[in-house]
Amino acid sequence: MIVDLRSDTVTRPTPAMLEAMTSADVGDDVYGEDPSVNALEAEAAALFGREAAVFTPTGSMANQIGLQLLVRPGDELLCDVKAHVVNFEMGAAAALGGISSRTWTSVNGRLDTALVEPMINRPHPYSTTTRAIAVENTHNMGGGTVQPIDELRALRALADAHDLGLHLDGARIWNAHAATGVPFAEYGALFDTVSVCLSKGLGAPVGSLLIADAERIERARVIRKRLGGGMRQAGFLAAAGRYALANHIDRLAEDHARAQHLARSLEPFGVCEAAQVETNIVLLRVRDIAQVAKAAAEQGVLISVLGPDWGRMVTHLDVDDAGIEHAVKVLGTLVR
Amino acid sequence: MIVDLRSDTVTRPTPAMLEAMTSADVGDDVYGEDPSVNALEAEAAALFGREAAVFTPTGSMANQIGLQLLVRPGDELLCDVKAHVVNFEMGAAAALGGISSRTWTSVNGRLDTALVEPMINRPHPYSTTTRAIAVENTHNMGGGTVQPIDELRALRALADAHDLGLHLDGARIWNAHAATGVPFAEYGALFDTVSVCLSKGLGAPVGSLLIADAERIERARVIRKRLGGGMRQAGFLAAAGRYALANHIDRLAEDHARAQHLARSLEPFGVCEAAQVETNIVLLRVRDIAQVAKAAAEQGVLISVLGPDWGRMVTHLDVDDAGIEHAVKVLGTLVR
Amino acid sequence: MIVDLRSDTVTRPTPAMLEAMTSADVGDDVYGEDPSVNALEAEAAALFGREAAVFTPTGSMANQIGLQLLVRPGDELLCDVKAHVVNFEMGAAAALGGISSRTWTSVNGRLDTALVEPMINRPHPYSTTTRAIAVENTHNMGGGTVQPIDELRALRALADAHDLGLHLDGARIWNAHAATGVPFAEYGALFDTVSVCLSKGLGAPVGSLLIADAERIERARVIRKRLGGGMRQAGFLAAAGRYALANHIDRLAEDHARAQHLARSLEPFGVCEAAQVETNIVLLRVRDIAQVAKAAAEQGVLISVLGPDWGRMVTHLDVDDAGIEHAVKVLGTLVR
Amino acid sequence: MIVDLRSDTVTRPTPAMLEAMTSADVGDDVYGEDPSVNALEAEAAALFGREAAVFTPTGSMANQIGLQLLVRPGDELLCDVKAHVVNFEMGAAAALGGISSRTWTSVNGRLDTALVEPMINRPHPYSTTTRAIAVENTHNMGGGTVQPIDELRALRALADAHDLGLHLDGARIWNAHAATGVPFAEYGALFDTVSVCLSKGLGAPVGSLLIADAERIERARVIRKRLGGGMRQAGFLAAAGRYALANHIDRLAEDHARAQHLARSLEPFGVCEAAQVETNIVLLRVRDIAQVAKAAAEQGVLISVLGPDWGRMVTHLDVDDAGIEHAVKVLGTLVR
Repeated sequence: MIVDLRSDTVTRPTPAMLEAMTSADVGDDVYGEDPSVNALEAEAAALFGREAAVFTPTGSMANQIGLQLLVRPGDELLCDVKAHVVNFEMGAAAALGGISSRTWTSVNGRLDTALVEPMINRPHPYSTTTRAIAVENTHNMGGGTVQPIDELRALRALADAHDLGLHLDGARIWNAHAATGVPFAEYGALFDTVSVCLSKGLGAPVGSLLIADAERIERARVIRKRLGGGMRQAGFLAAAGRYALANHIDRLAEDHARAQHLARSLEPFGVCEAAQVETNIVLLRVRDIAQVAKAAAEQGVLISVLGPDWGRMVTHLDVDDAGIEHAVKVLGTLVR
Repeated sequence: MIVDLRSDTVTRPTPAMLEAMTSADVGDDVYGEDPSVNALEAEAAALFGREAAVFTPTGSMANQIGLQLLVRPGDELLCDVKAHVVNFEMGAAAALGGISSRTWTSVNGRLDTALVEPMINRPHPYSTTTRAIAVENTHNMGGGTVQPIDELRALRALADAHDLGLHLDGARIWNAHAATGVPFAEYGALFDTVSVCLSKGLGAPVGSLLIADAERIERARVIRKRLGGGMRQAGFLAAAGRYALANHIDRLAEDHARAQHLARSLEPFGVCEAAQVETNIVLLRVRDIAQVAKAAAEQGVLISVLGPDWGRMVTHLDVDDAGIEHAVKVLGTLVR
Repeated sequence: MIVDLRSDTVTRPTPAMLEAMTSADVGDDVYGEDPSVNALEAEAAALFGREAAVFTPTGSMANQIGLQLLVRPGDELLCDVKAHVVNFEMGAAAALGGISSRTWTSVNGRLDTALVEPMINRPHPYSTTTRAIAVENTHNMGGGTVQPIDELRALRALADAHDLGLHLDGARIWNAHAATGVPFAEYGALFDTVSVCLSKGLGAPVGSLLIADAERIERARVIRKRLGGGMRQAGFLAAAGRYALANHIDRLAEDHARAQHLARSLEPFGVCEAAQVETNIVLLRVRDIAQVAKAAAEQGVLISVLGPDWGRMVTHLDVDDAGIEHAVKVLGTLVR
Repeated sequence: MIVDLRSDTVTRPTPAMLEAMTSADVGDDVYGEDPSVNALEAEAAALFGREAAVFTPTGSMANQIGLQLLVRPGDELLCDVKAHVVNFEMGAAAALGGISSRTWTSVNGRLDTALVEPMINRPHPYSTTTRAIAVENTHNMGGGTVQPIDELRALRALADAHDLGLHLDGARIWNAHAATGVPFAEYGALFDTVSVCLSKGLGAPVGSLLIADAERIERARVIRKRLGGGMRQAGFLAAAGRYALANHIDRLAEDHARAQHLARSLEPFGVCEAAQVETNIVLLRVRDIAQVAKAAAEQGVLISVLGPDWGRMVTHLDVDDAGIEHAVKVLGTLVR
């Protein structure tokens, strides 16, 4: 038995999803002629109450296109010090977009608008001008943290007051929705650009989307082509995404329940806090976690090592109750 | 009847290719765990006699990674004035890689090393240093032109003499091989980095590869991630590519024969030269071609408009003899 | 009477400095043949105990060359959230060098190595790799804060442990030296690259230097040329810099004493804290400071407005005791 | 006796120019308060019949700012294959501005609009869009070639037809004017952005200007600051530039006459063509020129080596008739 808790990216399509892929109608998406891609883009835009969307091979590309739409070279993005967009996209914002960034320090990745406001540099001939703020929801390195909707609304007000763009790194916005019931359209209304990922909790093999207004998405297609993301018969991937949107959102509550169960089971050993687990991610604090991860892997339980004494477990479509029980048993013994 | 001659990118998978996709074994390729991707990369590297390869969502990304491996920001690439890498990749070499470029003027995109040599800027504290040369084979805008192997060998010697890198934009190297019989491994030996495309003449839905030595491919994976090309369960796409490599190379001769027939049939009207057609591309010279293309489309024949009096037809997997006859009939009437 | 406290950049050369400029021996510095520039570079390198230096038109250029030497495109720089290199150089690190950045939050710009350590991203195929840390000494927006030498030594140890580069933005390192007596060579030994500015407290009209080892300075000349900083007969400016190095360092203590006097005189009105004033900068906290600045200017006292309720006064070569008394009188009345 | 014919950049200020520098009124130009810089900018703008100008430390910076104003990252610049902007500015257009470039091949750098027209890529979602064309007048590597005014007018018409920007690299536009009498205002009217250099034929020690409309120059100041070109009391340099504009343009005819004399004297040896010498540059074709240059240097005659069998001589303010006679004598013997 292999219980792969390293990430929710490791899922393989279900038979039904694979059937949807196989029977997809496809065309050349560079020419705008792939019906499955077009349908997926329309459905995603509608879900978030926005005009348009563009399909991308990865969430990193969707994020970087969003940032490039909001911030020109030499201008500035503000984000959390642990944000995916600056830590796990290989410096793309600066390297590819010339985007300068400064970061605020958060507790568990949770947004606190009061920390953001004093950082804003207004347009001035001697200073780097702040143009946009990025928020990650849920927050990966924070431990699947859900951003409070009131805080997001406050951020929108702040952004409006300073004429700033807001980008949502919504790779796991599905989980935020599942945890809070906040409608996707409300998230869509608060942010200028929204990235969503189909190949994490939703279980599709490949693909993300950037969602925004029609004018920005038109420019996004040019940036996507420049980045090398203009695929041809991408409809096979899009069909899996459409299936995921239609069938895999509601089931995320199960992943959350399993993560909660996992956290509660390991909490007595002092390695995690169940109260901090809001969605499908459980952060582990264990000395010499590389050793623990190695030993667990030998018993079929895979976890991510994030630092010398810091690891991560993520529940998803391919982990069931039995898997969680196995993980509890294996890890409970190892971290005791 | 629709005969789509706009590009060889418009093909849809055959039933057998689709079956290969459906039954593919997949995993998380960001973690290096997708068996189908790994197999495709190994097969492509072996085909070209090189150590390693990396799968990318598009040929543009494979090209740009190759160029970034050979040329650092502020250094220089030389290529043909009609090369895809500078004309059809949205300025990515400069915008994303900071790569300066100068171009030589060719006849039909055919390489003439004598034109290249005097352009080389040696390393010097006051001048932009030339670091690499890119060659496109076959040459798209040149009309599917095959680069003479002797000229490529001369270019390699020139590059060695000046310590320059050589990149092959081999999106249609399959067609060059089909036309000449030059082994892929000979192309692989002449160039430092080689991009090949699976979704043009080979008929796979999505995907390209960059092929090089192992050290460069390791760095290529970092650049691919930065560009947003690190897909997850990409094995579905890779499986189609593996099928294409195994089954669709030999049949390219049919595409070439059909292109030749098309050109000969239209040559009497003075709109193309059959002698220039070496592979699967036929360039058309017709006044007001947009008008011609529109009229042809109404009769089910689609061609590309490249300029006010310049168009392109490309034969491929989804165009059979009947399609060609239909195209000849429709276009013959229109350009008469 | 005009008392210009906006910045120490506003100074005009003294008659003796002007005489040094006029009588300078000059040549073409792009060819490395300007004797005054060469002498200045050698003197500055020697002062900091390093091998080499390169003259630049501005401190921003010296900083950016230093950062580009330490961090490649897509890699990461860490610095204080209020650092000049990310706030007042127009996003150059990202826009020109592709350098990604994250920032820590400090009190008055004072370095706390404990805040820096957890931010470091080690080399990893999925994450942006931290390559360098920049420190500003004295810290402009912190209020002329001097970085404690023990903290700088701790930072060096941290950098060594993680194989990181250290850049010193030493635009006002002269003031740090004047305040602490720490030898310049000790600063030179702790940092890989050091920028120093001749046109702030030292009173030269134009010019900065980047100081490092010989290999880096050789590369720096190429980057300087790319940035457009390869001037020709720059010896006139260098001669002013040589005069400043020889004659204007010791007198900085006077500027510090005047800043201290200014702060003590205004402290009773609750607008500044004299204990925070370590060098030649006094930060002012006053509601509606734009109004105050305007009224002060009408009486000949110029101050900088940094935000709605935040301003700055800087003492320098062109402000004497009488000027300070006038400023105290004018501002004392306005902020009462 | 040293006769330095390597470049017209090697000149040292005359006593009168030095006197103008010494007595200059200066201020902080970053604050826009340097009266000498402001006067120079106004005079240069007026000379070319344009609204505004900005002073830069080098011609490279003026060129690069001009290009960045006309072409956004990922868009395209067209220029001659031997243009200074792509060959001698260290790839800055691509590295700093993300500007893609393609080049045409000219004879002696002379513009032929018919070669340019077919290269233009119109805005299209799949192709790199051409946005600007750069012309160098006089053309350095072409041998001081003057661009025919009719050809420049034709280029303007072409640019207007395609909505393209035109940049003039006018480092030696003074020489073009001296050779043709074409008013500066006519050059100013034909180009969107014009760079001019004060430290080549005009003999000022440091400095160039970018001339354009007021809106572009306002943006140019931001780019200049980003590039590290925002100097403080630059008025000393500007004063030299003002002196040069007022006093050194008319005398360029002398440099041209001397270059002509030099070329005619050496022409019998088959190493240059006097008919090609239109301004102050003489190109030399000599086998093993490095050897010749070394031998000439030992007799006090300095020339530039551009390639294995290619060199350059440039006349300027610091070379008089006696110097030319000496050069003729020395070189005549060596190339015989």
